[in-house]
Amino acid sequence: MVYLTLWMLWRVSGCCRSQRSMAVVLSGQKASLEIRQRLRRDVDQMKIQYSGFRPGLVVLQVGDREDSNLYIRMKLKAAAEIGISANHLRLPKTATEDDVLRGISAVNRNPLVHGLIVQLPLDSMNPIDTEKVINAVNPEKDVDGLTHINAGKLSRGDLRSCFIPCTPSGCMELIRQAGVPVVGKNALVVGRSKIVGAPMHDLLLWNHATVTTCHSQTADLATEVSRADILVVAAGKPEIVKGEWVKVGGLVIDCGINHIPDNRNSKGKRLLGDVHQPSALQRAAFITPVPGGVGPMTVAMLMENTVQSAKHFLQVNHPGQGSLNHSRMSRQTPVPR
Amino acid sequence: MVYLTLWMLWRVSGCCRSQRSMAVVLSGQKASLEIRQRLRRDVDQMKIQYSGFRPGLVVLQVGDREDSNLYIRMKLKAAAEIGISANHLRLPKTATEDDVLRGISAVNRNPLVHGLIVQLPLDSMNPIDTEKVINAVNPEKDVDGLTHINAGKLSRGDLRSCFIPCTPSGCMELIRQAGVPVVGKNALVVGRSKIVGAPMHDLLLWNHATVTTCHSQTADLATEVSRADILVVAAGKPEIVKGEWVKVGGLVIDCGINHIPDNRNSKGKRLLGDVHQPSALQRAAFITPVPGGVGPMTVAMLMENTVQSAKHFLQVNHPGQGSLNHSRMSRQTPVPR
Repeated sequence: MVYLTLWMLWRVSGCCRSQRSMAVVLSGQKASLEIRQRLRRDVDQMKIQYSGFRPGLVVLQVGDREDSNLYIRMKLKAAAEIGISANHLRLPKTATEDDVLRGISAVNRNPLVHGLIVQLPLDSMNPIDTEKVINAVNPEKDVDGLTHINAGKLSRGDLRSCFIPCTPSGCMELIRQAGVPVVGKNALVVGRSKIVGAPMHDLLLWNHATVTTCHSQTADLATEVSRADILVVAAGKPEIVKGEWVKVGGLVIDCGINHIPDNRNSKGKRLLGDVHQPSALQRAAFITPVPGGVGPMTVAMLMENTVQSAKHFLQVNHPGQGSLNHSRMSRQTPVPR
Repeated sequence: MVYLTLWMLWRVSGCCRSQRSMAVVLSGQKASLEIRQRLRRDVDQMKIQYSGFRPGLVVLQVGDREDSNLYIRMKLKAAAEIGISANHLRLPKTATEDDVLRGISAVNRNPLVHGLIVQLPLDSMNPIDTEKVINAVNPEKDVDGLTHINAGKLSRGDLRSCFIPCTPSGCMELIRQAGVPVVGKNALVVGRSKIVGAPMHDLLLWNHATVTTCHSQTADLATEVSRADILVVAAGKPEIVKGEWVKVGGLVIDCGINHIPDNRNSKGKRLLGDVHQPSALQRAAFITPVPGGVGPMTVAMLMENTVQSAKHFLQVNHPGQGSLNHSRMSRQTPVPR
């Protein structure tokens, strides 16, 4: 509502002043905090209603990559704050594909676990088929939404019965919070990865945008970007989208996290998005910053999926013990086709 | 090659003459006949190589809809001509969901059957969950490509390991035969059904077009159509796409099959596509007719999927007995990302 008012103000000021207004910056920090606070209340309610019950999450890691360690620490910290029982299942670098599949199988069978994610990439000395490993996760516990079954449901519009990958889900949440209607809008997704671009396309499509997907083979990215009321960039290329391409008054979601060497910085590097932010700020009505935009939302939506999975588990296994609020499912439901 | 030459001629003549050339009509009859002839040779080879082996197909029908009966007759006839052992498993209108699931389970277990399709819509007096029924088909026998697993693979670009739904697969075959390159082209799909529109998007995307999907909520269909080098219309609405919207020199695939009441016709009806064909013919470089365009390709691609499934079965169960030509898989393989 606050953002909606800001959007209306942006439009008015943009029309009346020769100096164009700067975009409203959509804070993923703030939005993710609100989600995590809501989830904490949900989990507290579960504990009371189901005598000490807690949602369970397992993060399976193979090896010891430093970036994976960092991401896992963030996930475990967020889970602990919400009241989710989260466990880190770490297999050594010497683990074989069979070891990983056995680990997944054990977690699949454990009724105390409602969400299982496999931290990628797998850091093993042995050849491991990542697709096989991902698809060994029980789709009912696949809170990353990466199994073929969940992808198939999402891509064909069955949004109510699937887990939605966390980054695109977080992007949709930011779009929703901006108050920008999606139905009938021209939306553009730059990138077609399994984790972000492809499911983002699906989410926008089934929320009834007219969606275009661009990628490395696209002939004229600038023209495509200039047509987009809603632009989501997940190309993994620093500042590939120039600000001057952005549609005036558009909404820009920047999923890029690119570490660029920079001697002027004390860390020796700096973080850039996939969008040239300073110039895009001059034209967009809304933009997500990097960092502090999409990043924090990804962790929040993983927690959301885990809590929803636990609610589903309770309703299947303990029906009639009162109703839990399936807040997210109702928010994800698209309008009738 | 013939079409490619025609395309070059079309371009030359279009440039040199004030009178614009008519589109080359892409005959699905001719293309499907060629595919079925090739498949017949493949099946003959299998019979010799694997002592009388024949690919097996089952068409499961519930009830007695006249349109379904017609479609099933066409499929059984095509299968017989190719040498596929096709069976029609018909359940009565009184069949329950459990009856249908039991029927599917039996076919799933039958090693003589390599393809199983469920004729839709299900015509039962009892409530039956169509999604549940479709997903009860073993994905390895799902030659309609409609299970979540096959849809998930296709939507995320794993084209080598999935069955592709028959109508979009037939459309891609016609595009290929026209000799029009897909990589980097602007492609537009009108419609987002599970059977045609959504998988068509996936196929074009993973063959590296820049793809847009339009639907009932799209604000400006005319503008979107005018940008399309490759246009696939599967909206199910007679002549929703006007010829004057079509890009000059574009390729138009019309998936529409709309029966319109017509008193001037002896049958009392006539068949229209989703594109206004007479006017589109004046602007496009290629166009598929209705009837005789996409329709015959659907049946041919079902046969293709069945034969490929049988080849896969043989290679898994009888390895080392010589190699079979996986012609389709190699043709479907997109260029590297």
